[in-house]
Amino acid sequence: MAEVVAGIDIGGTNTVIGIVNRGGDILAECTFPTRCQSTFDAFVKTLTGEIERLLMELGHEHKLVGVGVGSPNGSYHLGAIVDAPNLEWKGILPLCKEITNQTAVPSVVTNDANAAALGEMLFGAAKGMKNFVVITLGTGLGSGIVVDGKLVVGHEGFAGEFGHVVAKANGRQCGCGKRGCLETYASATGLRRTAFKMIADSNQPSMLRNMTYDKLSAKMVTEAAKNGDPLARAAFEYTGLILGTRLADLVAILNPEAIFFFGGLANAGELLMDPTRRYMEEYMFPIFKGKVKLMLSGLQNKNAAVLGAAALIWEELEKGRL
Amino acid sequence: MAEVVAGIDIGGTNTVIGIVNRGGDILAECTFPTRCQSTFDAFVKTLTGEIERLLMELGHEHKLVGVGVGSPNGSYHLGAIVDAPNLEWKGILPLCKEITNQTAVPSVVTNDANAAALGEMLFGAAKGMKNFVVITLGTGLGSGIVVDGKLVVGHEGFAGEFGHVVAKANGRQCGCGKRGCLETYASATGLRRTAFKMIADSNQPSMLRNMTYDKLSAKMVTEAAKNGDPLARAAFEYTGLILGTRLADLVAILNPEAIFFFGGLANAGELLMDPTRRYMEEYMFPIFKGKVKLMLSGLQNKNAAVLGAAALIWEELEKGRL
Repeated sequence: MAEVVAGIDIGGTNTVIGIVNRGGDILAECTFPTRCQSTFDAFVKTLTGEIERLLMELGHEHKLVGVGVGSPNGSYHLGAIVDAPNLEWKGILPLCKEITNQTAVPSVVTNDANAAALGEMLFGAAKGMKNFVVITLGTGLGSGIVVDGKLVVGHEGFAGEFGHVVAKANGRQCGCGKRGCLETYASATGLRRTAFKMIADSNQPSMLRNMTYDKLSAKMVTEAAKNGDPLARAAFEYTGLILGTRLADLVAILNPEAIFFFGGLANAGELLMDPTRRYMEEYMFPIFKGKVKLMLSGLQNKNAAVLGAAALIWEELEKGRL
Repeated sequence: MAEVVAGIDIGGTNTVIGIVNRGGDILAECTFPTRCQSTFDAFVKTLTGEIERLLMELGHEHKLVGVGVGSPNGSYHLGAIVDAPNLEWKGILPLCKEITNQTAVPSVVTNDANAAALGEMLFGAAKGMKNFVVITLGTGLGSGIVVDGKLVVGHEGFAGEFGHVVAKANGRQCGCGKRGCLETYASATGLRRTAFKMIADSNQPSMLRNMTYDKLSAKMVTEAAKNGDPLARAAFEYTGLILGTRLADLVAILNPEAIFFFGGLANAGELLMDPTRRYMEEYMFPIFKGKVKLMLSGLQNKNAAVLGAAALIWEELEKGRL
């Protein structure tokens, strides 16, 4: 009988479940809306029900041995989701305990960026690397940090909040309550804010000038930049300046072998990578200059969050921690 | 026969050797001038000769089992000192190989701040902690980072260069070739630069106004602040702002349990700790607010560098890595 795990990616909108084998193949997959579940209990019941259904479909030769979850504000140490801004259920949600109650197998949770980092290490471009960082660039900016082959979770399980380092004192208002956090500049939302500010600050002609803020998306800014729009290009340059400077800091602190970009905004590719790399090198501590690979995730456009969550539980099972 | 190690602290001016037992007691100690050694080979010969002499003094019931070294720009992975700005011998100096050749026991090197972190964990205030950071505040700013009970060395052994994160874009000139590095503000030298700039920028009366830059020391600024000198107090406030902001970043990235200050400037105590703590809390990501201990090293004013270097080699020997 082949052992499998369930890798779960909880998002504000949808939850994705994958049944994953040791080699990182997704054998079965399904998606259900996160928001339609009225209570957290109802959510867990739907979740475990769907896992069971997928296993039934796969047939009796597969045995579930664990459940790994990537979630916004997932705390590894608590086995819980803690006050996630984009989930409807607040407080400390004892996710792992509930899953284990329903499935009778061990369960572990971490935040989505940490899951992406594990996915990268086991199934992506970080195979064989022991020191690297995955930066997830979506609505916000998350980071998963691997040191000496292990995910950095920190004292309370909340390490990797690189999106909330101070990029600019008294800068843009952030959803976390602070001002000037890195993710208010370097993320899909940040790029949009930068483009809008540039429309106001400069007289540069731009195809973005006929957009409302609510309609403008990072994808539109990316398309405009690809078409040579100078204002859109300047917005990427500025994003690269802010992100590259802070990545140079991250390198000084951790001396990683590589930094991977993952997520929606990473699809902008060299438009974002080129200025980021240039400024990162400019602000880099001399002994690290030219030595740190800045590249796209090897799982970009794959279901990395599910693979990462699966990687997490496989790792825990192998290390006998559960 | 009791096993002992040699803990060595190489400084730009002096080198200190301690013979240290498993409990962290320094059984014998000596100091010799680093600079008087004409070549690196001569330095290693003097070093190992002094170790032998100390062991002879202790008598035959002590057996040397390893040598641990803390050195500026010490590379753990290379077992070497690499282009240390304040040592006279340049290039890659194969320190560990040479020590082992002379003593026939394993040797390991790391930078001085990493050694201090290990000393703190084994013999200081970080006993029992698994996630913490030691910040050394002397001429420059160094950091030793412990994650999950292990020193973070990074891909090439140079992690912990927290003194060279960007505190101010296009800020003060740093010895590393960059501008605006944290250590140009938050260190003994940084405090002196800040006081001097404030003398120029403000009309505030101050007992420091009759000082030349070359004569002004961080200790004088500290004394002035203790005596209520408003300009000297403002210099500490500014140092706390810069350092506290960047420590909030470090917490966001690593989620440590505690941060320890060590070294000459740490002797300023609450003069430095109070503003640093205030600004760190102000810029802290909400879930970490009020949770991270900022405190003085438990080895402050002890020979922590020697104890740390000894801790390093004890750890390596216990983990069977040598």
